[in-house]
Amino acid sequence: MSAPAGGWVLGVDSGGSGLRVALAAVSASGAVEPGWETVTAPPVRTGPAGIDAEQFVARLLPAGRELLARAGDPGPLVAACVGAAGMATLGAGLRERLPGALADGFGVRRWALAADAVTGYAGALGMRPGVVVAAGTGMIALGSDLRGWRRADGWGHLLGDCGGGAWIGGRGLAAALRAHDGRRGGSAALLARAEAVFGPAGGLPEAVYPRQDRAAVLASFAPEVASCAPADPVAAEIMAAAAREIAETAAAAAPGAPAGGGGTEVALTGGLLRLGEPLLAPLRAELERLLPGCVTVPAAGDPLAGSLLVAARIAVGGLRLPSDRALLVVG
Amino acid sequence: MSAPAGGWVLGVDSGGSGLRVALAAVSASGAVEPGWETVTAPPVRTGPAGIDAEQFVARLLPAGRELLARAGDPGPLVAACVGAAGMATLGAGLRERLPGALADGFGVRRWALAADAVTGYAGALGMRPGVVVAAGTGMIALGSDLRGWRRADGWGHLLGDCGGGAWIGGRGLAAALRAHDGRRGGSAALLARAEAVFGPAGGLPEAVYPRQDRAAVLASFAPEVASCAPADPVAAEIMAAAAREIAETAAAAAPGAPAGGGGTEVALTGGLLRLGEPLLAPLRAELERLLPGCVTVPAAGDPLAGSLLVAARIAVGGLRLPSDRALLVVG
Repeated sequence: MSAPAGGWVLGVDSGGSGLRVALAAVSASGAVEPGWETVTAPPVRTGPAGIDAEQFVARLLPAGRELLARAGDPGPLVAACVGAAGMATLGAGLRERLPGALADGFGVRRWALAADAVTGYAGALGMRPGVVVAAGTGMIALGSDLRGWRRADGWGHLLGDCGGGAWIGGRGLAAALRAHDGRRGGSAALLARAEAVFGPAGGLPEAVYPRQDRAAVLASFAPEVASCAPADPVAAEIMAAAAREIAETAAAAAPGAPAGGGGTEVALTGGLLRLGEPLLAPLRAELERLLPGCVTVPAAGDPLAGSLLVAARIAVGGLRLPSDRALLVVG
Repeated sequence: MSAPAGGWVLGVDSGGSGLRVALAAVSASGAVEPGWETVTAPPVRTGPAGIDAEQFVARLLPAGRELLARAGDPGPLVAACVGAAGMATLGAGLRERLPGALADGFGVRRWALAADAVTGYAGALGMRPGVVVAAGTGMIALGSDLRGWRRADGWGHLLGDCGGGAWIGGRGLAAALRAHDGRRGGSAALLARAEAVFGPAGGLPEAVYPRQDRAAVLASFAPEVASCAPADPVAAEIMAAAAREIAETAAAAAPGAPAGGGGTEVALTGGLLRLGEPLLAPLRAELERLLPGCVTVPAAGDPLAGSLLVAARIAVGGLRLPSDRALLVVG
């Protein structure tokens, strides 16, 4: 294989599903060629001092070497990008340890350390301005005008994550229990679904509070709320309110917000989109109301693809995403 | 001391502040005379099998004997009532163990085992029909027409407890973070208070999620919301919404609900009342709207006083509160 014009780069995405590592060749224009990819589970440990940098490096180095072997050992890498959940708040150790490890292990001299929201942004929108909504159990939006970043929500299920899966599911279960009690705002349809899923209403606290993954338990009910929405006004209002929250969060993070909107690209990502039209129909309407003329676009790729793209642009130039002490550090 | 006409009774209240035990003489009419009282902390253990009946008995018996000694060893007790948080759902072991222990330890042949909500009801309203609202970190209402019980809410901070301390504080913190993000519904005043209490907004998740007592952390912010309400419309709307929720919960539990209300006695109890007029003014208005003609009354006594009263009425007759498999078992 002849050497690619832009050289070889490494991309990393560390999150809830483990440590994902990818190797790819870069064209002269900075395009990422199809490459090789590997995953090591479980997620890298997070301790009281933050993400465990030693474990991170101990898993990253052999994974990278394995990919290089599969690619026929093309020689030193030009650049690498490491995106990690918690990089902004729990990444102090990683920031200190990674540059040396990448240099020693792969000959990498140019690198980026990014929050997973930034690699998610790069994966979805590339180097273009806009806003990326990540909606799963939680809810966060990250926007950029390519001069700086704006983050909105992502505060977790007790303080925010408004419109996300735990928010929808929790409101659905609360409406079920309102019906059980005879309080205003109850939904007999949601009560029936809650009892079908979790058993008699009286046992619902026991099904939620002892769990470590309480937010995920709440979010597991979100599809039931969505499926009740076409026939149940309470469920429909929960979905409509979620759409308003998501659109407002997107608008708060969008470049030029809160005024502008015309032509703003909005990429919707995350598992919550699988709820389909009961969420997407009101969400399109709310986005148009809050960001008139905005364009909803599908994500071009995932956070690992975003990490490779950032590395590629470091390699050949053209990294337009703004540096930020917490979100994106380039060295 | 001459023997009281109604004999001597024991009352017990087991909850978050420990095991409280009281001994009192009963008049011929069933009135509880001033008596003796003791507390043993910490709370009785709750294990996978429910409230630890052995520990409960091992602490109740010496506490009762101590009170009897202080009263001059007046001889066998006529009746006892044990009220316990969790009696309805976690009290299987207690129900089995207590009657024998009360008989062996104190010669008690007539007893009642009650949920703490029932002893709270008896303490607040005595033997009268009505509804008792218990509002602290959580929120629950229990009502009775003296033929049966109606419970509303009390589902905990993720599923309900609507209008309670964690609900108010959580909404206040969410409004603070909305202001931080630039989302609709934010309050700069609440953001300022949140940062004064918890430090910079970015650290708020760290202040809440690792804690075991997350609901109490949220509730700790409720007084800040109340104190902002006179000058801040977002805080005022949170207090108004809390008042609506509490009134609706009271109405759902009230006897004759959802129609009636005229003359219904509503007793408001719990630490949330200390929020004062920012809560109480809208609450009075909402109660009048949902239960027209209802009468708000102060609680006559606490759950321990309620437990003594139930025991006294078992001793001399006149227990008008209805038996219920989960809430009040009399033997």
